[in-house]
Amino acid sequence: MKNVAIFGAGRIGRIHASNIAALPGVTLARVCDPMGGAAAELAALHGAQVGTPESVFADRSIDVVAIASSTDSHSDLITRAAAAGKQIFCEKPVDLSVPRAQACADAVAAAGVACMIGFQRRFDPTFNEARQRMDRGDIGTPEMLVITSRDPGAPPPEYIKVSGGIFRDMLIHDFDVFRWILCADGDEAQWLSATGAVLTDPAIAALGDFDSTAVTIRTRKGRLCQINTTRRAAYGYDQRFELLGSRGMLQCGNHTPTEVRQWDASGIHADKPEHFFLQRYAAAYRLEIAHFFECLQSGAAFRTSIADGVRAQQLADAADRSARSGAPVSL
Amino acid sequence: MKNVAIFGAGRIGRIHASNIAALPGVTLARVCDPMGGAAAELAALHGAQVGTPESVFADRSIDVVAIASSTDSHSDLITRAAAAGKQIFCEKPVDLSVPRAQACADAVAAAGVACMIGFQRRFDPTFNEARQRMDRGDIGTPEMLVITSRDPGAPPPEYIKVSGGIFRDMLIHDFDVFRWILCADGDEAQWLSATGAVLTDPAIAALGDFDSTAVTIRTRKGRLCQINTTRRAAYGYDQRFELLGSRGMLQCGNHTPTEVRQWDASGIHADKPEHFFLQRYAAAYRLEIAHFFECLQSGAAFRTSIADGVRAQQLADAADRSARSGAPVSL
Amino acid sequence: MKNVAIFGAGRIGRIHASNIAALPGVTLARVCDPMGGAAAELAALHGAQVGTPESVFADRSIDVVAIASSTDSHSDLITRAAAAGKQIFCEKPVDLSVPRAQACADAVAAAGVACMIGFQRRFDPTFNEARQRMDRGDIGTPEMLVITSRDPGAPPPEYIKVSGGIFRDMLIHDFDVFRWILCADGDEAQWLSATGAVLTDPAIAALGDFDSTAVTIRTRKGRLCQINTTRRAAYGYDQRFELLGSRGMLQCGNHTPTEVRQWDASGIHADKPEHFFLQRYAAAYRLEIAHFFECLQSGAAFRTSIADGVRAQQLADAADRSARSGAPVSL
Amino acid sequence: MKNVAIFGAGRIGRIHASNIAALPGVTLARVCDPMGGAAAELAALHGAQVGTPESVFADRSIDVVAIASSTDSHSDLITRAAAAGKQIFCEKPVDLSVPRAQACADAVAAAGVACMIGFQRRFDPTFNEARQRMDRGDIGTPEMLVITSRDPGAPPPEYIKVSGGIFRDMLIHDFDVFRWILCADGDEAQWLSATGAVLTDPAIAALGDFDSTAVTIRTRKGRLCQINTTRRAAYGYDQRFELLGSRGMLQCGNHTPTEVRQWDASGIHADKPEHFFLQRYAAAYRLEIAHFFECLQSGAAFRTSIADGVRAQQLADAADRSARSGAPVSL
Repeated sequence: MKNVAIFGAGRIGRIHASNIAALPGVTLARVCDPMGGAAAELAALHGAQVGTPESVFADRSIDVVAIASSTDSHSDLITRAAAAGKQIFCEKPVDLSVPRAQACADAVAAAGVACMIGFQRRFDPTFNEARQRMDRGDIGTPEMLVITSRDPGAPPPEYIKVSGGIFRDMLIHDFDVFRWILCADGDEAQWLSATGAVLTDPAIAALGDFDSTAVTIRTRKGRLCQINTTRRAAYGYDQRFELLGSRGMLQCGNHTPTEVRQWDASGIHADKPEHFFLQRYAAAYRLEIAHFFECLQSGAAFRTSIADGVRAQQLADAADRSARSGAPVSL
Repeated sequence: MKNVAIFGAGRIGRIHASNIAALPGVTLARVCDPMGGAAAELAALHGAQVGTPESVFADRSIDVVAIASSTDSHSDLITRAAAAGKQIFCEKPVDLSVPRAQACADAVAAAGVACMIGFQRRFDPTFNEARQRMDRGDIGTPEMLVITSRDPGAPPPEYIKVSGGIFRDMLIHDFDVFRWILCADGDEAQWLSATGAVLTDPAIAALGDFDSTAVTIRTRKGRLCQINTTRRAAYGYDQRFELLGSRGMLQCGNHTPTEVRQWDASGIHADKPEHFFLQRYAAAYRLEIAHFFECLQSGAAFRTSIADGVRAQQLADAADRSARSGAPVSL
Repeated sequence: MKNVAIFGAGRIGRIHASNIAALPGVTLARVCDPMGGAAAELAALHGAQVGTPESVFADRSIDVVAIASSTDSHSDLITRAAAAGKQIFCEKPVDLSVPRAQACADAVAAAGVACMIGFQRRFDPTFNEARQRMDRGDIGTPEMLVITSRDPGAPPPEYIKVSGGIFRDMLIHDFDVFRWILCADGDEAQWLSATGAVLTDPAIAALGDFDSTAVTIRTRKGRLCQINTTRRAAYGYDQRFELLGSRGMLQCGNHTPTEVRQWDASGIHADKPEHFFLQRYAAAYRLEIAHFFECLQSGAAFRTSIADGVRAQQLADAADRSARSGAPVSL
Repeated sequence: MKNVAIFGAGRIGRIHASNIAALPGVTLARVCDPMGGAAAELAALHGAQVGTPESVFADRSIDVVAIASSTDSHSDLITRAAAAGKQIFCEKPVDLSVPRAQACADAVAAAGVACMIGFQRRFDPTFNEARQRMDRGDIGTPEMLVITSRDPGAPPPEYIKVSGGIFRDMLIHDFDVFRWILCADGDEAQWLSATGAVLTDPAIAALGDFDSTAVTIRTRKGRLCQINTTRRAAYGYDQRFELLGSRGMLQCGNHTPTEVRQWDASGIHADKPEHFFLQRYAAAYRLEIAHFFECLQSGAAFRTSIADGVRAQQLADAADRSARSGAPVSL
């Protein structure tokens, strides 16, 4: 039986708490959140108790910490959890600063604790099936990856201000997908060119950020990756990728709420994609947490290590640099 | 807090038990099954106790019984549960005999207990969305319904022998969908013609049953419904319907495990439908049980009453008669 | 070089004329139509001359007649063309009366002339590909056929009055598809049950016809076919069929004007099917006429013989009888 | 009546000849090709005569020349045709050298003759419908364009050697689509970054060319375009684009030979895209030539001017420079 403390009782914390509570052999024991009311409510829902970081790290009965708190608290909590010998699940990103993220990775390695980063897209049934088919060789050798990653709307300016910018906040997932898919055999990014624009809301420009970006990555083996992103797709949340290989292509489409098609005088109408990440990745979040505890049990390697978290952050840094300078970056 | 006893610890019983156990305000308290081992295992999984019908019906602390046992036990358990004042959820069918099913409905009415029949298709997200659009008038007045209902393979001969035949065992769901969709405004079947054949396995003919059927129903308002069914579709479980209305059509497709399309030299390949009913209707089973307890709480009418169970059975009887005689049946 | 006379300069006559004129080795020499102006216009367009039946049948230089005139003139023209030793292409139907159609077939046989009936669906690229895959065994042995056949709107009452009724006018094509697909190995219809209703326009009821029909056919081998038809589908012209076999299913969808999908806040929107038969079957009409002349050249059997025309008419008669009597028909 | 001389009796010349010959009011009068046999064969097919450039340019009865000869002959033929006062249809590209292409444009302007360049994708029913919807404002203001453009296989080395490289030979079409769609309101490319690799055949590297490319363009208004290209997609010819606007997205899919879906134990299988450009763009070639003659008749502006040809060539030059230098290019 694993006892778990969760940090963060917000939107994503509640998802993880609910998935943790439903796992056999796992108990959600503590909930910590600076907003005491949110912590109390979430704890009550799952029969857990409210805690503090201090009490959790000092409590020998707590085996695992799940970090779903605000981004700026991640590195501190990882470092202290590692020092306390806890096993760690941490939402992306490790940290907006690559050096601090690397320091976390070093602390985890020094402490010899397990640490998995929450890149949930690797657990999406559609994306993961594509990866498995690629691994089986169904499309031969991978050559080109095209990622479409669009949000239904921009977060509020206050969030954007502390987000690290669109490359670190939003494309971090896409950089991880790039590495997971196109670098599965050890290949890595060699050349990256990014550009951006503000097309949806001048307030974003005022904050020095972009809302629309286009990134190209070439790997050492010459594979090509293109990523297109916007903060605001009028039709909703759009998460697709296409992987071209020497013998075929794998195309990963969106998930939809229903399979209804309406035929009428104006055409044939299908559902939009699932509303946003909580809906699209509901299964992924569930499978991700299950994977984490299965690996703790079996000793198998996590599908997403803290090193993956650091590398995605490096690509986000490079993209930000490229988009601001107008010049490509060598890696 | 509602305390629930479940009858039946087989495949479908385990689904319902798990969905019941996950509901807030509901406790799975007893599990009953002639196979003591199965009952004990399921009870242990959910922290319930093993019971017997006698102990359950005598126990004042049990509010609700969920009947998921073998078909031939349904009417007896419904009758006794009604007499004991329990609220009842019962898997379809009420009974293979219409008079016995009607007797159950009478017993339920006399006892004044709540009773819902488990036609889970009415809770499928896709089918239910179609019904809601029809209710909103999105396609005008309903005119024609085409139901495709195909299993991936026939059950073993021992099951077929006691199944009541394909119309009562398999098409019972389709007859309920017909009524739910085409008779939502009080219309009813007026004329029914059915035919059948044995095309997949002579053993089914030896048992006096069909494996392939084609049914047409005309309602009092002249609406038309066609149902095509087979016990064995090589590509798996196929559950679709199309509803033509005066202003458009609603087409309900299958659900699939993933949204991967593989493009290669032999074509573009998509997933088969979900494997079988446990996968296709996973969400439906969850929503069905939640609906049952919400109605108990609110006093709202169930989406599927015991009268619906009786009427579907009457249509199954009529279809069986028509297919055997070669003549249509007036209703 | 074949010299051709066409009878009928209406909508379908113009299609055939244009396709005939485009074939190498074929000359459209005469156009005949009771409406002299239409004949003259069509003749001018293709550099042909206006003719009369008498002049055509007496003219030794005319090898082939293409009959695309009104239905009630078909049998007379076929009979006279056969007597004159012309090779014959005739639009469906041979005649609304089965005995008269059979008399035509006898006349053609007695004269030893070639005669093909224009069931253009057999030349539709999608339907024909399905037939070829069935022939190759890609889905094993055929078991069940579901035909959806819907028009965008009913013809005017004057047309309906002389149409022979929906079964002879509209379903004649579907009966031919049934035979072409499900009876390709010599199987034939054994039992047919039809029903109909008037759901779209009371004027159709006043003419003693139906606008919505549902037909089931069982073959001697026990194969099942269901056909659903309406005169008025609000979304347009809908021509699909699904063929279930022992090893899979072939699903034939509609053709569409473009492959644009529009994603917006209200969903994902695709084209309606092609507007009506002239658009949907544009390629089929072209391929049909080419096939006719290729067979004349090579001596190969036509894909659609006059016997096929008679048999489809017999099924239409049976369906009409069944729908009016409420009883199935044995064949 | 327009009399036309065609230069080039190869694959694309035969397509244009056949489409020209089918137009009312247009006569294909001369066919010129260095391969006399090919010219004679094509001329015979359409009742034309074999000619030479000299005879054509000297012949006052020839109104129009259609240039479908080898790329290196285009600029010479355009210049001489302009000098002779002929109206000109010329296959893309104008010339592999931008200065020579510009000189052609100047010659055409000086002579005051009409000249249209054959970018047939602008006439594809799917692409053109997207453009029309964009113009109607159906998706608001255009923001981002993603073009997928893949060939089924590389041409032979001899062709690649004289092709001008993948950007001038293959992406020229994509650069034109970019301008046609994203610059429809007068916007133009401002910044372009391209990269390439050789992933399918080392022989292509030996020729100093790429087989796989990724291009990003940013316009003056900040709109973004990504183009991904390969010479060899194992599944065939893939021609799609997606246009994101402020209120939605237009997604242009491939055309397919049939609408058959095969459902079997291994999944649901659909057709690959049409085989190659002659099949995919069959309708486009037909509509393109019809548009050319309609514009000659009406005096309306061509959808694709010689200036469009020059600009696409400039983008191809820029992409080639960027991919070779590793640095973006400002335009």
